[in-house]
Amino acid sequence: MPAPQYDVVVIGAGPTGENLAHRAARGGLSVVVVERELVGGECSFWACMPSKALLRPLQVLAEARAVAGARASCTGPLDVPAVLARRDRFAAQWDDASQVKWLEKNGIALLRGHGRLAGERRVTVTGEGGTTVELTARRAVAVCTGSRAAIPPTPGLAAARPWTSREATSAKRAPRRLAILGGGVVACEMATAWRQLGTEELTIIQRAQRLIPGYESFASEMLRDALERLGVRVVTGTTAERVERDAAGAVRLFLASGETITADEVLVATGRAPRTEDLGLETVGLTPGSWLEVDDDMRVTSVAGGWLYAAGDVNHRALLTHMGKYQARVGGDAIAARATGRAEPGGPAPWTPHAASADHGAVPQVIFTEPEVAAVGLTEEQARARGMRVRVVDYEIGQVAGAALYGDDYAGRARMVVDEARGVIVGMTLVGSGVGELLHAATIAVVGEVPLGRLWHAVPAYPTMSELWLRLLEAFGL
Amino acid sequence: MPAPQYDVVVIGAGPTGENLAHRAARGGLSVVVVERELVGGECSFWACMPSKALLRPLQVLAEARAVAGARASCTGPLDVPAVLARRDRFAAQWDDASQVKWLEKNGIALLRGHGRLAGERRVTVTGEGGTTVELTARRAVAVCTGSRAAIPPTPGLAAARPWTSREATSAKRAPRRLAILGGGVVACEMATAWRQLGTEELTIIQRAQRLIPGYESFASEMLRDALERLGVRVVTGTTAERVERDAAGAVRLFLASGETITADEVLVATGRAPRTEDLGLETVGLTPGSWLEVDDDMRVTSVAGGWLYAAGDVNHRALLTHMGKYQARVGGDAIAARATGRAEPGGPAPWTPHAASADHGAVPQVIFTEPEVAAVGLTEEQARARGMRVRVVDYEIGQVAGAALYGDDYAGRARMVVDEARGVIVGMTLVGSGVGELLHAATIAVVGEVPLGRLWHAVPAYPTMSELWLRLLEAFGL
Repeated sequence: MPAPQYDVVVIGAGPTGENLAHRAARGGLSVVVVERELVGGECSFWACMPSKALLRPLQVLAEARAVAGARASCTGPLDVPAVLARRDRFAAQWDDASQVKWLEKNGIALLRGHGRLAGERRVTVTGEGGTTVELTARRAVAVCTGSRAAIPPTPGLAAARPWTSREATSAKRAPRRLAILGGGVVACEMATAWRQLGTEELTIIQRAQRLIPGYESFASEMLRDALERLGVRVVTGTTAERVERDAAGAVRLFLASGETITADEVLVATGRAPRTEDLGLETVGLTPGSWLEVDDDMRVTSVAGGWLYAAGDVNHRALLTHMGKYQARVGGDAIAARATGRAEPGGPAPWTPHAASADHGAVPQVIFTEPEVAAVGLTEEQARARGMRVRVVDYEIGQVAGAALYGDDYAGRARMVVDEARGVIVGMTLVGSGVGELLHAATIAVVGEVPLGRLWHAVPAYPTMSELWLRLLEAFGL
Repeated sequence: MPAPQYDVVVIGAGPTGENLAHRAARGGLSVVVVERELVGGECSFWACMPSKALLRPLQVLAEARAVAGARASCTGPLDVPAVLARRDRFAAQWDDASQVKWLEKNGIALLRGHGRLAGERRVTVTGEGGTTVELTARRAVAVCTGSRAAIPPTPGLAAARPWTSREATSAKRAPRRLAILGGGVVACEMATAWRQLGTEELTIIQRAQRLIPGYESFASEMLRDALERLGVRVVTGTTAERVERDAAGAVRLFLASGETITADEVLVATGRAPRTEDLGLETVGLTPGSWLEVDDDMRVTSVAGGWLYAAGDVNHRALLTHMGKYQARVGGDAIAARATGRAEPGGPAPWTPHAASADHGAVPQVIFTEPEVAAVGLTEEQARARGMRVRVVDYEIGQVAGAALYGDDYAGRARMVVDEARGVIVGMTLVGSGVGELLHAATIAVVGEVPLGRLWHAVPAYPTMSELWLRLLEAFGL
């Protein structure tokens, strides 16, 4: 039997794989997606969707209780079962039927099983029971397998059956005591959720000196304060040297600082590893377990012939669902264009449809804590490290009338980073209630390279929080 | 005694007057502001601030109750006294002390009294007790007197002592029955507020066939549905032909349709009139009671010598606080530049600091109802009327993951209006919970004339409501 042929074989049906397949199919190509777990991937079932479904009720309740006049109506206890049921609903009860239907509707074939590269443009798929199917890709193979939680080699940690982001977003009840290793986004969001959903003792153990180290330091500080106000203990500058789970089920973490933390569960949120260990990378000259370096159009740089693509977490450019989807649009379109001779000969120019240019300095991210942390582009430090002459403007968001109206005693801060040579914004960080939806304005300003003098004419409606924009520009000196 | 001299005399200390004075003073000029009521004006005491202070508790409570998991915590009755007390606090108990302090801090003189023009660059101020002060402006006089509710000449209406926006935003209790003449922003916001604050029978009587006629028609329809769900009766296509208030205090409105509405109060919200009746316009060749037409740098076009400016509502360009403040920045800067010989000789070019270019097609507005209505730029109809070849893209906001997370069964709609010739967005209308803060992204895109192909690289963070941007661009065909 000849190997089934498709123009494009996509390995991994998370949002990145789905979108890459969709764009390639939209471009007229035949596409098959290979998935060994649930179609919809990490984001739909064990990350973004369930975590935000858990966090939103807590957030909106905090917002309502921050407003005199609404506060007295919201004094009831948190309905934890309803929050968890909402999470289950947003995770579609961990059933991928609707996503499978979406693939069908878009004319994309689905092959369930574990896909492995088997040389140039070939993929072997091992299904349940060990049956295998050999696929040939006429045009391209796209690796969209994403990442998984990296478990550090701390003695006893793996044996202690730690939670990862998967268990933290899908748990059916709050552990009474939860220890979190790591102080990034997952750690802060899950601490925010579980502390309010019933965890009595919650400790974040962060090796670095501050939480969310890639962000402006004021964001780290404000987030730490907020977590501590929720009753989360934050320990920085140390980590677990040894972990053990005893017969009664308790986990003990022996910290470098000398302290011992005892918990019922330990969540490991110290970083991500690429899902490339068992992907047949060795058959195409790559190293199993490595990240896959790609060009701006998502082609793996070290594989000849330009047939292998990698989009999403697995290429290590920007480990965020929305950036994976962005790369998927770019990559899927690039594959289709190349197949029909419409690709740019010398590779795509920046900001053209087949270049994921935003990866390099226009990556947005929202941390759905309370307050929220939202940032796009470069921090002051990152901009200076790139040799830019920058001017930084800070503003207390609570001084904006729209923020004061939004919540009593509103506390928040914004930082705008301006490249003085070009007169454009290269970074924005916002901390405060409800700032997540303010971020896209900054993303457009950064990506659009809109000069400050033109932004001056973009009038924010009064009295919204967005009037922050006016205040930042005034503070800059306009 | 020689007349006190200042470089600039500003008549009216609302946000527009305050900002114009501030920008002129910042430019090195001596400035006096003349105010006969409260420093801070309509917006601070009888419009934006009190109305939004009333509406925000209702809004956030509705948002919390829309989220399973938060809903059960928010079942208490609305705390009406707390909402009203919050409003009083945001209206600073109708005391302008802090605003007076702000003027002082910025080196701006304040003269309390009624200012009237008295010929070229002269203003007579009549204070309490009839004392007068003659002011001379070395550089410019700026009229920033704003607007007041226009009371139509309907027989019996004025005698019925109707509410205007002032009484509607400052009332100490909800009337049991409230009739609202007009169906614009004031009518819809105040109906939303008072219906929830205790008014049992609330009727909006709108002469036009739909509410908020300047907006996309779907926004009118969604807003009407929302008001009706709140229990507001909306009557369109008719108006009151006669009004009478009886001895017992009840107001009867005899409609053109033949129906009679009985209410305890009637709010007139049918339009605005310029506050120029008693301003001495006749001394400079203008007609009392008229709007003051201005150039893009805020100079009154029909007055020779270029010394008379008018910013804010009074020039009838865009009757919104934020646009008045914008014009104030432009006008104050233009006055200062002209005084120091830094003005553009032939008048300012579009989008330069001394041209209020946004007035012509980039005016944003948010209606703080539930759902909110937010719009910037041109509607489809307005764009076509300007001869543009436009393509319109609609999207149901509830289909965005971030919106579904924001509120259960989220219902909202977006419309993007694209000028196909230039490949840029010229208008955006959003209807839905929390969309007000999404608007500024559209304002930046419109004002920045950011091409759609570049907006494609402005990645919205997942899962925020802002992902609507991706959906609109996809629906456009990107």
